[in-house]
Amino acid sequence: MDKLDIIKIGGNIIDNEKKLSSFLRSFSSLDNKKILVHGGGKLATKLAEQLKIPQQVVEGRRITDAETLKVVTMVYAGYINKNIVAQLQANNCNALGLCGADGDAILAHKRQHAVMDYGFVGDIDVINTTLISQLLDHNFSLVFAPITHDQQGQLLNTNADTIAQELAKTLSDIYEVRLVYSFEKNGVLLDVNDPSSVVKKINPEVYRDLRSKEKIFAGMIPKLDNAFSALNSGVKEVIIGNAEELSSLMNGQSGTRISNE
Amino acid sequence: MDKLDIIKIGGNIIDNEKKLSSFLRSFSSLDNKKILVHGGGKLATKLAEQLKIPQQVVEGRRITDAETLKVVTMVYAGYINKNIVAQLQANNCNALGLCGADGDAILAHKRQHAVMDYGFVGDIDVINTTLISQLLDHNFSLVFAPITHDQQGQLLNTNADTIAQELAKTLSDIYEVRLVYSFEKNGVLLDVNDPSSVVKKINPEVYRDLRSKEKIFAGMIPKLDNAFSALNSGVKEVIIGNAEELSSLMNGQSGTRISNE
Repeated sequence: MDKLDIIKIGGNIIDNEKKLSSFLRSFSSLDNKKILVHGGGKLATKLAEQLKIPQQVVEGRRITDAETLKVVTMVYAGYINKNIVAQLQANNCNALGLCGADGDAILAHKRQHAVMDYGFVGDIDVINTTLISQLLDHNFSLVFAPITHDQQGQLLNTNADTIAQELAKTLSDIYEVRLVYSFEKNGVLLDVNDPSSVVKKINPEVYRDLRSKEKIFAGMIPKLDNAFSALNSGVKEVIIGNAEELSSLMNGQSGTRISNE
Repeated sequence: MDKLDIIKIGGNIIDNEKKLSSFLRSFSSLDNKKILVHGGGKLATKLAEQLKIPQQVVEGRRITDAETLKVVTMVYAGYINKNIVAQLQANNCNALGLCGADGDAILAHKRQHAVMDYGFVGDIDVINTTLISQLLDHNFSLVFAPITHDQQGQLLNTNADTIAQELAKTLSDIYEVRLVYSFEKNGVLLDVNDPSSVVKKINPEVYRDLRSKEKIFAGMIPKLDNAFSALNSGVKEVIIGNAEELSSLMNGQSGTRISNE
């Protein structure tokens, strides 16, 4: 099986031109087949403000109305995606940018909810592994913007963490997949105020132990639950760590590694 | 040789939701391998206005400063490109959207001019026929946004007519190419005020005759010069006509056909 690295890059790095360009240089030098999934950072919020499009947030969730969908499509699939691709190309990484509509890469449906209307938010139904493996086998590095479609002409705003996770799960049938969540922190921390308190390795036993002692920061629990769900679907390893140290993150010198072993 | 249709769609159609969706239905039903090249319509100008980015026009040419490049990247490569792709997917046309940076599809350089600085405007150097033919041979219909890159990380705003023409010329080495300029007019008209005065066929002899009698509307002359230049580079046929009648345009029932024969 070929090795495939799927790397989610967090918003804070995207907002910082210098850090982003350093991250993209490191990404370019990775040897395995690779996919980058990006979110949007603050650019979409800023553009919505400039255009005076009111942003509704209900129970911590942003509602994607038609005007907001237009903004995120422009910012994520246009500005951010194409600038990342152009920078990767400058680093001799043959990148190809995609949203879920391109080649029917990611099929989703508008989220249904008994009470809430999230607007044009997509929940993923199908990852097109044929398309993605064809492109990877032609040695393209794929860059995914967090926009999907419903096969009926509607684009949908979709969580980038979820896209990375679903890609990793589905592509584990074909590749030996490492799923990497790279962001501004050094990994899973025992003390959120101490960047050096990284837990180097988490397996189910360690996770149970840490949770029972309430050592895991609440915001990290869904990420870890998702990580174990990915491992149980065939993903080889999940890595969480600092996007500014991508090389050491990938070769095991930094970050948190999560596995079933 | 496989047949390939390269179709440029004009801005007026893009601005009209109903006409665009009808055009995309017709495009989807075309049998040959196909590439759609779109411009931007009025959306980019409107967004620049909303964001209070002053638009400089010098001698009829828009200057693409950094802020304007950001706007056109968002609108062309993001909003318009991805909405077109999603609509084509809904019509069972397996579309894949690209800008020139994706897969290094179109390499360009920043325009150099003795006096004028056009800003981030690209003149095309290389069309990546390997990439494009690989994708076409996987039966993708390609949708190009008029944004290119310089292989050094810089995106560049590039004329969509020129992209269509350069694609057509270069791909004529591999495919039997028809190049179609579809817009709001019925073709080359003898009388600009009479939509029924379409010249059905133009060859070099007819063109010389019409020009000597000053029957060709000045705005059409560069388009026709470009058409003959494309034919001389191996393009089989150039067709100019109404985007609202794409089917009849392609099967020869409407529009102007330009050839060397």
